[in-house]
Amino acid sequence: MQAPLERLSRALSKLPGIGRKTADRMALKLAYHRDGILRDLVAALNEVSATVRSCSRCGAVTVVDADPCRICTDTSRDGSILYVVEDPSDVVAIENTGVIRGRYHVLMGKLSPMDAKGPWDLRLERLLKRIDEEKFGEVILALGTDMASDTTANFIHELLKDRGLKVTRLALGLPVGSGIAYSDPVTLERAIGGRQAM
Amino acid sequence: MQAPLERLSRALSKLPGIGRKTADRMALKLAYHRDGILRDLVAALNEVSATVRSCSRCGAVTVVDADPCRICTDTSRDGSILYVVEDPSDVVAIENTGVIRGRYHVLMGKLSPMDAKGPWDLRLERLLKRIDEEKFGEVILALGTDMASDTTANFIHELLKDRGLKVTRLALGLPVGSGIAYSDPVTLERAIGGRQAM
Repeated sequence: MQAPLERLSRALSKLPGIGRKTADRMALKLAYHRDGILRDLVAALNEVSATVRSCSRCGAVTVVDADPCRICTDTSRDGSILYVVEDPSDVVAIENTGVIRGRYHVLMGKLSPMDAKGPWDLRLERLLKRIDEEKFGEVILALGTDMASDTTANFIHELLKDRGLKVTRLALGLPVGSGIAYSDPVTLERAIGGRQAM
Repeated sequence: MQAPLERLSRALSKLPGIGRKTADRMALKLAYHRDGILRDLVAALNEVSATVRSCSRCGAVTVVDADPCRICTDTSRDGSILYVVEDPSDVVAIENTGVIRGRYHVLMGKLSPMDAKGPWDLRLERLLKRIDEEKFGEVILALGTDMASDTTANFIHELLKDRGLKVTRLALGLPVGSGIAYSDPVTLERAIGGRQAM
């Protein structure tokens, strides 16, 4: 392949779930539709770059002129429930279940010594500050089911005990070894419904 | 999701092999890496848009200052062999086998009444002109194995008979129902080796 196509394929293969062969096919298709899908994709990327931000409170996705985000400022929600999640995409997955509508706190990852990811890399300081300021009754650790997520859940549970909070985890029911965002809404809804006190 | 993310997800879902759920995850990842993968992807897309073109002769991918492309002008190739393929990505797949190194002609599709795609939508006029001008001994119809590809092969075979050319098709060996670009180099090499006279 030509060098510009190689570079495009490499950039595409950084996206989740995209291997080199799929990236090659995507790059070729884009090259052949410069005035269609390529132009539209560049426009959409530039728009996201210019307008999409992280909410300074919860860390979820928001737009540049709505910070805190519409979930943080939505007064119709149950303000006593805080979901702690690893990734912004987990917020989207939980919102899609339509079950308990609470607030969120995105950690931006999980504890993982293998990847040199420690407590200081997660948004834990902001979490403790929010727990002091906002009046949560229950913190739901809506984390994945792999070892790093387990470690993260236990670490946060230690941090939060003696604060008079109910700390729960999602029921097992999620397929072990996967993350929140991959599960279908029904499985996820069941896991939220069957959450257990830690 | 926010409107700019929805639009980005929709643009990504136009790419081959990308469903809406994968596109959503890609869009979120891009939004959270505006200064990394998003910026690199925009740069790569803009470079492809500015530099990558179709070869005016064979229709395969080339760069703006190399037309005809490096395959068309490569004098070390077997100039008597012409592969006729549906898609530019098929050229990449055949090149990767390293078997007979001939020339190519990309049709840009196949006959498909369902999609209102007729002979005038393929690069057939250019194919006949090349066959008159260049001295091919054999035309290999390296098309897929579904019904539309069969129809296309038969149509081109009709066009080319009485021109003193050997017209062959790839051996069956390709999994029926799929396209050229999806097959692995070994299967594809076997199919090229076992091609049959029509």
